[in-house]
Amino acid sequence: MCDDRAARFLRETPLWKLQAPTLGLKAAEGIELWLKLEHLQVSGSFKARGMMNRLLAHDIPASGVVVASGGNAGIATAAAARALGVRCEVFLPGVSPEAKRARLRALGAEVVVVGEQYADALAACLARQRETGALLTHAYDQSEVVAGAGTLGREIEQQGGLPDSVLVSVGGGGLIGGLAAWFEQRSRVVALEPERAPTLFRARQAGEPVDVEVGGVAADSLGARRIGAIAWEITQRQVRDALLLSDEAIRAAQLWLWKELKLAVEPAAALPLAALQTGAYVPRAGEKVCLVICGANVDPASLA
Amino acid sequence: MCDDRAARFLRETPLWKLQAPTLGLKAAEGIELWLKLEHLQVSGSFKARGMMNRLLAHDIPASGVVVASGGNAGIATAAAARALGVRCEVFLPGVSPEAKRARLRALGAEVVVVGEQYADALAACLARQRETGALLTHAYDQSEVVAGAGTLGREIEQQGGLPDSVLVSVGGGGLIGGLAAWFEQRSRVVALEPERAPTLFRARQAGEPVDVEVGGVAADSLGARRIGAIAWEITQRQVRDALLLSDEAIRAAQLWLWKELKLAVEPAAALPLAALQTGAYVPRAGEKVCLVICGANVDPASLA
Ligand SMILES: Cc1ncc(COP(=O)(O)O)c(C=O)c1O
Ligand SMILES: Cc1ncc(COP(=O)(O)O)c(C=O)c1O
Repeated sequence: MCDDRAARFLRETPLWKLQAPTLGLKAAEGIELWLKLEHLQVSGSFKARGMMNRLLAHDIPASGVVVASGGNAGIATAAAARALGVRCEVFLPGVSPEAKRARLRALGAEVVVVGEQYADALAACLARQRETGALLTHAYDQSEVVAGAGTLGREIEQQGGLPDSVLVSVGGGGLIGGLAAWFEQRSRVVALEPERAPTLFRARQAGEPVDVEVGGVAADSLGARRIGAIAWEITQRQVRDALLLSDEAIRAAQLWLWKELKLAVEPAAALPLAALQTGAYVPRAGEKVCLVICGANVDPASLA
Repeated sequence: MCDDRAARFLRETPLWKLQAPTLGLKAAEGIELWLKLEHLQVSGSFKARGMMNRLLAHDIPASGVVVASGGNAGIATAAAARALGVRCEVFLPGVSPEAKRARLRALGAEVVVVGEQYADALAACLARQRETGALLTHAYDQSEVVAGAGTLGREIEQQGGLPDSVLVSVGGGGLIGGLAAWFEQRSRVVALEPERAPTLFRARQAGEPVDVEVGGVAADSLGARRIGAIAWEITQRQVRDALLLSDEAIRAAQLWLWKELKLAVEPAAALPLAALQTGAYVPRAGEKVCLVICGANVDPASLA
């Protein structure tokens, strides 16, 4: 991603170093918290990094790009396509809310509503891709998408040096895959999932990626049904800890981030703080803990 | 403010450097925008700097501190008093909303509701101060309060070097007074006020501080009736430009900051962007423009 077009499109987001007492955490006196404010990235999440990286790695046909996602991956694809001046078709099921469709249209995407469920939209998207040869973006399981997320790790290190640990939420695993590929064993990368969307946790129990039931407060962003093959491979080598957090803890941390720090973020971005607040993750004295604040696609009214 | 207690209480807030194309500004190719994210300061605004500075400059009597403000100055005083473990009484008029009183109580302050209008609460606060000898904090016209705001200028320069210009909103002038005292003529400090709360603008027309009618979307924070004597003196020497902005432009910039940058801020914090978006302030090519994002005391539902 040394392409100028990526640099013009993406933002370098702030790395905010805070002393832990500021956060009212009792345990672990003297730990240093680094908040990577990646929810301020273009498109409102880190996904813009991966999608732009994918688009720049290919000659894009006149038929443009296609994606099946009304969430952050779809928004990021549409934003990247617009920045490059290429067509973008987004496939969504009938259950998708009008607000998401409107947002994608405002980004210049053509929204195709098809079938009832997400699987229908995905099937139509794949059929369309075969028909037109458009470039397909996947929310997490493509190497350029994972590599794009990895630039977040590089940016953290450039800005702040090497953290001791990196707390990060996991859906399909593109984000943690990129971060763990960047940090390897130099930092301890910790995987965080909602109890109700435990794709990596269950895969570890089963010894291989398996489908899981997903739901809960963060399902919008972390509701992939199965950990991606790329993320599985990387995390098996590089990530020791995979922790689960309750919806209550996630929601409490999300509200706390607004009330105390004035960061308006979505539930997926609150898992790192929830891990500290619940004691699911206990840093040692002096530890530099990086919290990846990954997305801001939230209705602000839900924070009131 | 080299006191350790100030350092433990306050946060170093991020300085976020953005290339202007990211912001969709057409004019002034190649300008550099620096967003000082001071709305992430303790208490949700820069006021915490001044209030802590005032409290640390005095031996605080057993009667504690008193203030008449339900806004950011009151909140910041209560937060600073709690951090130092001293009593805090806040005087508010009957018209003040219950939400503000609750917030102050949550910070450990004693809330005294008195009379109907703000002037009644202020009179009662001053009487109380004479009676108990408590330390009075003023929202903007005390030297330690202005000096505290000045530490924001120092922090900007330490983080990013010297900006060419600093765009900042003005109420009673404590903030601009501190910044202009810090930057002097080294940066061009630009005063921004709502058309409906033009304290500095009218003082310049009259040749001296005068009372003005105040109202509009930012009145909560920028609704001082008269520019402070300290700010008047400093700005006369150091500040050339005092610009007015319409409520519509302020509100549009506030919504834009949420929609495009995911910064949830109050109207007072949106004046710097409004000045750029309306063309009230036009930077020259290559200019480094620092926008002071000064407060986040907003009902997030108002951003939806
Ligand atoms: C805000 C946010 N955080 C985290 C994730 C999880 O990312 P991944 O699916 O790459 O694990 C997503 C995925 O959409 C997201 O939008
Ligand atoms: C968020 C915010 N911005 C700006 C101001 C204006 O500051 P001053 O009164 O020091 O000019 C205030 C004052 O309360 C404020 O709360």
